[in-house]
Parts: sequence; C-alpha cells; structure tokens
Amino acid sequence: MKKIVLIVMDGLGDRPIASLGNRTPLQAAFRPGLNTMARDGITGLMFPVSQGIRSGSDTSHLSILGYDTVKVYTGRGPFEAMGLGMDVRKGDVAFRANFASRSKDGKIEDRRAGRLSENTEEICSAISMVLDGVQFTVKPGVEHRAALVMHGPGLSEKVTDSDPHETGLPPREVKPMDSNASRTAELLNRYLSKVREILDKHPFNVKRSGKGEPPANELLIRGAGKAPEIEDFNQKYGMKGACVVGIPMIAGICSLAGMDVIKAPGVTGRVDSDYESKIRTAISALRDHDFVLVNVKGPDIAGHDRNPELKRDVIEKADQAFRQLLGLKGEVVVAVTGDHSTPCTYGDHSGDPVPLLIYAGGNRIDPSERFDEVSCVSGSLRIQSGDLMQYLMNVSDRAEKYGA
Amino acid sequence: MKKIVLIVMDGLGDRPIASLGNRTPLQAAFRPGLNTMARDGITGLMFPVSQGIRSGSDTSHLSILGYDTVKVYTGRGPFEAMGLGMDVRKGDVAFRANFASRSKDGKIEDRRAGRLSENTEEICSAISMVLDGVQFTVKPGVEHRAALVMHGPGLSEKVTDSDPHETGLPPREVKPMDSNASRTAELLNRYLSKVREILDKHPFNVKRSGKGEPPANELLIRGAGKAPEIEDFNQKYGMKGACVVGIPMIAGICSLAGMDVIKAPGVTGRVDSDYESKIRTAISALRDHDFVLVNVKGPDIAGHDRNPELKRDVIEKADQAFRQLLGLKGEVVVAVTGDHSTPCTYGDHSGDPVPLLIYAGGNRIDPSERFDEVSCVSGSLRIQSGDLMQYLMNVSDRAEKYGA
Repeated sequence: MKKIVLIVMDGLGDRPIASLGNRTPLQAAFRPGLNTMARDGITGLMFPVSQGIRSGSDTSHLSILGYDTVKVYTGRGPFEAMGLGMDVRKGDVAFRANFASRSKDGKIEDRRAGRLSENTEEICSAISMVLDGVQFTVKPGVEHRAALVMHGPGLSEKVTDSDPHETGLPPREVKPMDSNASRTAELLNRYLSKVREILDKHPFNVKRSGKGEPPANELLIRGAGKAPEIEDFNQKYGMKGACVVGIPMIAGICSLAGMDVIKAPGVTGRVDSDYESKIRTAISALRDHDFVLVNVKGPDIAGHDRNPELKRDVIEKADQAFRQLLGLKGEVVVAVTGDHSTPCTYGDHSGDPVPLLIYAGGNRIDPSERFDEVSCVSGSLRIQSGDLMQYLMNVSDRAEKYGA
Repeated sequence: MKKIVLIVMDGLGDRPIASLGNRTPLQAAFRPGLNTMARDGITGLMFPVSQGIRSGSDTSHLSILGYDTVKVYTGRGPFEAMGLGMDVRKGDVAFRANFASRSKDGKIEDRRAGRLSENTEEICSAISMVLDGVQFTVKPGVEHRAALVMHGPGLSEKVTDSDPHETGLPPREVKPMDSNASRTAELLNRYLSKVREILDKHPFNVKRSGKGEPPANELLIRGAGKAPEIEDFNQKYGMKGACVVGIPMIAGICSLAGMDVIKAPGVTGRVDSDYESKIRTAISALRDHDFVLVNVKGPDIAGHDRNPELKRDVIEKADQAFRQLLGLKGEVVVAVTGDHSTPCTYGDHSGDPVPLLIYAGGNRIDPSERFDEVSCVSGSLRIQSGDLMQYLMNVSDRAEKYGA
C-alpha cells in the first residue's frame, strides 16, 4: 500500500504558440523532472469533468477528488466566496455581488459603478453586520465585485436575485422560491435597505460624487447557493487527506471535504510562489497523511494573462521543485495533471484535455517518454477526472475488490 | 454477418517483473498466434467494469457479456455458490458460509474452526436436507469455507446474517429485513438449529475433539443473495450463445444468461487444462452457435500464486492452441482480452487495464503489432468492458442501426 501525492498544475493545458515555435508552453519548458516521471511511469490525457467541458477550478477540483459535480455543485456563490478567502460552512448561504450605482429615482444607472478602481474593503466592512441573529459578511473581489455570506440557522438558498441584470430598472425585491425561504428573503430585503442607507451617505461615495464619479451605493446580489455537502474524503477513501494549496477556493473545497489544509511558507497562489517550499511541505505531510493534494496556480495566471513565456517559466520553476519527488516512487504514487487548460491564445479556460502522468514503483511503464499535451497522446490513459481517484487507489494498492 | 469467438484469458494483465527483465509475463511469452492477430487486427486497452476498479471474475464476466453489474450483481452468495459448482437457479437464495467453533456456553470461539485442513464434504452432506419443501444444500469451499443454497418457492434474500462477525458472541438469530422475508428467516433459524444438533454429535467433530482440535459445530451464514435475473443472452443479441469454460462460476453465469455450457475433454480450470481441446471444441461449437465465450483460467491461477514463469508458460501453451483460429478470420471475429489483471507481484486482482485484440477479416487494421499490456497502448481502443459486446456486434456486422 503506497501513499499518494497528486499535483494539479492549474490551467496547465495550452495550444500551440507561434512565439514558442508552435509548441505549447509545457512543450517549450525545460522539464527534466516531469519527463523522468513520464518515462518511468504511465501517461495519457485527462478530460476535466467531461470531454470538451470548459470547467472551472472549482468544478474540476471537485471532480478530480471524486465528487459528482452534478450533485455537489449547487451554485457559484459559495465558491466565489471561498475564492475570496471567506469561511463558508455547512448551512451558510452565499451570493456573488456587485457594487452598482443607483440614481435618485431608485433605478440602476451603472451595474458596475464605473468598474471601481479603488479597494472596496472599507465599504464591505461598513455593510457587514448581524441582523436577527444572522451574520452578513461582505468581502471585496476585483473591481466592482464582491461576495456576501449569510451565516445563521434555518437559511435557504431558494431566493431570487436583487440584481435586475440590466440598467434603467430598480433593484428587484428578493423573493422566496419556496415557502421555506420566506424568512431568508425577508431578511435579505431588510438587509439590502440598510445597506442602501449606509452606502448613500458613506464618505467613500461622498468622495466619489465630489470627483463626479458614479457612486457605489447599491449591492446587487445574485447566484444564491448553499455550501455544498461533500462526503468526507477520509471516509470515502479510507485515507487521511491533506492539501497544500495557495488559492483560498481550493483550500475551501478541501476543507469542506474534511481534509487538512496545510500552509507552506512562501506560498502565495501567485506566480512568485515558492514551489520548493510547497513540495517540501507536501512531502513532510506524508508523515501523517496518506494523500496530499498540491495545487500550483502559476500556469493558470499566465494563461489568463495571455503570457506564454511566463507560463513556460513558471512550469520550469515548478519542475525544479518536483525533482524532490523523484526518489519517492518506491513508497509514494506521484500523479501530475492539470485541472483544465488555459490556453495563452484564448486567455480563459478551455475544454481541451490535460496531460496526466502516474509515477509509481512496481507499476506499468508505457511507451510515452515526455510530459506534455502532445507526447502524452502515446500514453495508456484516456480518463475522465471523476475516475482519477479510483485509478490512483488501484496503483497505490488501496482499492477494494468488487466481486469474487 | 460473422460469428464471434471471445476468448477471456483470466487475470491476464500484469506489471513489470524483475526476473523477466522488467517485462510482464505476456510480454515475455513466445506468442506468435496472439501477435499475428494483433498485427492483422486492431488492439487497445480494456477497463474491466470501469477505470481502476479491481473487479472479480464474476463482475467482470457479467460486464463483458454486456450486463450492468450495478443492476444484476446483488450479492456474493450466489456467485460463491456457483464457484463451488452448485446449481443456482432463478428464485434460489444463496449464502457464503463458514464452519465455526461454538463453545458449550453457545458463543463463537473461532470463526474458522482452526482453518480446517480436512475436506468437509462429509459434514456438508450431513447438513444438506429438505425442510418444509425447501431444499438446503451445502457444499465445501477451501478450508473452513462453504456455501449454502436454498431452493424452493417464495424465498427472499432480505434476511440478516447468522454470522456475528466476531468471536465471543453467540450466532445471531436470522431476521427478516422486510415482511416478505419472514418465512425465509424462520426456516433458516429452524434449519440452523438442526445443523447444530447434527454437527455437535457428528463423528467428524468427535474425532477433532479427541485430537484437541476446535470443532466445526456451527455453520455461520452471511451475504444472502438471490440468483441474479439476467436478460437472456440469445434474445439480447439475437445470437445463439455458448461457452467453453473450465470454472464453475463462469459456467454458472453463462447458464443463467441462457447460453449453452459446452464441456471440452481435458478441460480442468487449472493450469494443466487442455487448451488445444478447448479451442477445438469452441470452433466446433460455431457450427450451431453464433457466439462462443472461452475462458482460460491458467494466467489467473499463476498470478494468485505469484509465479510469473508459470504465467508466461501457460500463456505460451494457450497461444499455441489459439493458432487454430488464424484461418478463420474471413468468417469469424476473434477477440482476445482478460477479465482483469492479476499481477504476480501483487498476488490478487488489480484495477490495471487489460490488453484487447479484435481480429476480423475486412475490418480496420491499426498500427499496433503485438499483443501485450504495453504494445496495445498504441492500438485504437480504450474501452470499458460493458461496451465490448456492442463493439463486437459492430465488427461482425450484426449491430442494429440506431437512427436513420
């Protein structure tokens, strides 16, 4: 029975880049660590969630961990909130939110309040409050974006948006979609009118008006969702699980799954993250865990920035750190893959498959010799992300027998 | 329209073996027959049941024949009984059973009666009986193991185990899990108390007590299951099906599916089986059948014995027999695969994929040129076992059109 390290290189997959000689950033990277593992293991292509699906990091990580996204992915709200580092617990209801500009006649003039360039931390704090025993917490996202989390007993996510989704209309009253949601809707309407009072006279907006900028005097909420109920990872697989990840949303998912979230020194979730530290921490975590998930966010950031050279460089930096894993294959199964592709030519997630390698002593070795989107085509596997855990359970000699 | 011979080499897949130069037993075997079929056909990898699943021979054969194991595999009891060569028919209820030692105070002291080394045929016969029109039949398995089959009208498998699953407790009363099972539970309790009477004073146990050995005076039953209701193979596929197999469990499954079970002279289900006779018999069966399933058990036995040289040798012997099939491809589709891997380094079934070849005149030929776990990676197919029959129906020009 072996332990398992699963490395997810976020947004790893790419398409041919002219400036890299029509190679992908992964093909262009100097990657002796990954290539050694590919040569001494098996490779293939993995389809995140399903073939051609442009999955998010949230849906893809849920699927990679073996959870059925159709069942557990109940709305973006909770995942956006986790992505902002907010604590979202069982029973909480979360929303995506925008700061918007409401005119004197009560109609929305600008759904993005002029794409706010200032930090909204100050007004988010001002509108976080307790109302009737329910904690309302707002945290800022990028520009006009934010998230709202409601924490308290008996909440329901079956409520409509206050966001009218177009300008020239007043914010909508929040309505319950079933009878259990009446109190939640009523609370939200009371909360949002308090928010209007606070924002209308807040110095942040007084200052903006003085400069002739549209005020951020309305919080439009949408996409209500409850924190997903995820089967406990440790029970599901009979393994004690941990994660070493720099991005709050993935840490949030792992935490909901009952895995230990381990912080590594110098890990930032940005391209300047200390990958050596991340891998060293993951290896240490194997002392008292059976399974460690590592997420390396850099390639995704470079993909969104349409910067193939940066993507190549962060992959090279990660490869250097991964070489710490080469000595472990007698006792540890190492798997490396992506959660989705983020082609630099596209600047967003695509549904292209991602390369996958599984490096485990005593297991099969297939003819593929390098780790990239093209070389892995000659590998053994064509696998959906939802089957990966099962496959790793097999190569680590942990799977239960089905039948006689 | 062609006829089909499907050869399942039991436990065929393996992992690299140091003593065979890091090749698998299949790679190490001289196998001109299999390689010729691979070269002149298409190959690939098959995932028994699903990717990474460590399937049994029962679940895997059901899936290979196109039955959904989630629906038809209702418990191990009936398959264990079929594995012991017992006749299990529609409506029968079967159990896995252990001979155990019960002390004077009625508690189970040893759930395995000292792992009985003697044959229990004698006591199994003594406790087989008819009670209230229901036939109770017990047959011995390995050591302390046995199986119990109840045959009669109105039986239900919704009953609890008598096995307390730990020592120091008395055998449990069998309880009905729903109201339709009351009579079955009541009959079982009456049967088990008769069994106690018989076993307590049976010469087999008197002799054991004389030698100071723990008595086999309790039959603990568990894992009740009804013979699965399997859709008739001949109707499902519009083909008259037969099997030539040496192992009772697979014969039992084929028989439940309405296929003809054909015995070949010299076939034993062991490594000394006469494969030439088996293939000759399968070819003869094509006279009046459209589909013949052949199971070659030897590789699995060698895998469980952790004997890679033996596994290589039985594969060589089988390959010799398979060469009888080389002349048939104009009229017959030949497919060869495994039901699961049984790596010699692991000694049990693993979830690694198995190689697959399909050799059929007039069909496509892909670049793969040899038949083994590694060479077939360059073949066309990555297929789940449940899709194999459909694929074979296609290459034999038997499939129905879906749509216009």
